[in-house]
Amino acid sequence: MIKKKSYPLSKVYGLLEPGPVVLVTTANKRGANIMTMSWQTMLDFEPPLLGCVISNRNYSFDILRASRECVINIPTVELARQVVGCGNTSGKKVDKFSAFGLTAVAASCVKAPLIDECYANLECRVVDGRMVNKYNLFILEVLKAWIDPSQKNPRTLHHRGKGDFMVAGETLRLPSRMK
Amino acid sequence: MIKKKSYPLSKVYGLLEPGPVVLVTTANKRGANIMTMSWQTMLDFEPPLLGCVISNRNYSFDILRASRECVINIPTVELARQVVGCGNTSGKKVDKFSAFGLTAVAASCVKAPLIDECYANLECRVVDGRMVNKYNLFILEVLKAWIDPSQKNPRTLHHRGKGDFMVAGETLRLPSRMK
Repeated sequence: MIKKKSYPLSKVYGLLEPGPVVLVTTANKRGANIMTMSWQTMLDFEPPLLGCVISNRNYSFDILRASRECVINIPTVELARQVVGCGNTSGKKVDKFSAFGLTAVAASCVKAPLIDECYANLECRVVDGRMVNKYNLFILEVLKAWIDPSQKNPRTLHHRGKGDFMVAGETLRLPSRMK
Repeated sequence: MIKKKSYPLSKVYGLLEPGPVVLVTTANKRGANIMTMSWQTMLDFEPPLLGCVISNRNYSFDILRASRECVINIPTVELARQVVGCGNTSGKKVDKFSAFGLTAVAASCVKAPLIDECYANLECRVVDGRMVNKYNLFILEVLKAWIDPSQKNPRTLHHRGKGDFMVAGETLRLPSRMK
């Protein structure tokens, strides 16, 4: 198991703002599921709020709507095969943890599990479901964040469509007035 | 002036889904303004719908709310200085096109201008403002998209916070079932 550290909620936006593909875990009585997602945005810094779109054709949609809890797990390029595998299969038919060799670890605030192999994990609760019917848009609050402190420059995946990904490249530091 | 081509609306999601920093242009009687933005997500494929967060402390917020039109311009790393410059200044005090040497080009469907130097431009209309009061979240429909056909592998910028950017790296192609 990877030794994760608690990560300050005030810094969570920096994990999602660059636009990585994420793996969303949910859970119900039948077990845990994983969904690949790229349609999410930050909405507020602290507590971290985010908006994410999950199609109502996905198995995870009903689970999230009923349980109102999930974990946003951020993979790096080493998990590319699992990211595409989770995106191409349905939890209705496949136990994705088992099928793709991923490790479920108990979360601290929600019933959905963390994916151990992902370098960051955000435990989330649905705080506003009013845009779900019209846009499949869930508003989530991050309750607890975890990070693998050994990952200094995570090579995240960024989806350009139809299995084309951009892999995070070099870092550029420029003077900013942002506090 | 860069020779831009019309870009199919059905492919617009692939430009925004990777999570690039964008420059939002708006216009009113006083002129045109530019804002740096990273908090946006796709909401639907076609017509392309997106959700974007613009703080109500920004000059662009009031202009967008009143005019209900904007252009989402996507810069590459060559424009990093302008991206940070536009993010660190306010259109209340600065004519950003002039200050940062950017070229305004007339759009075809909206009054806000395209930024010529950006490799892609999305002309947008606000189609739902009901989440503006609570989340500063505007729902936009892309009416018309333009692209610089000479940019085969655009090195977009992805903000990690406080002036730290990740520059788009290599491309990875994996089999996908997405149509």
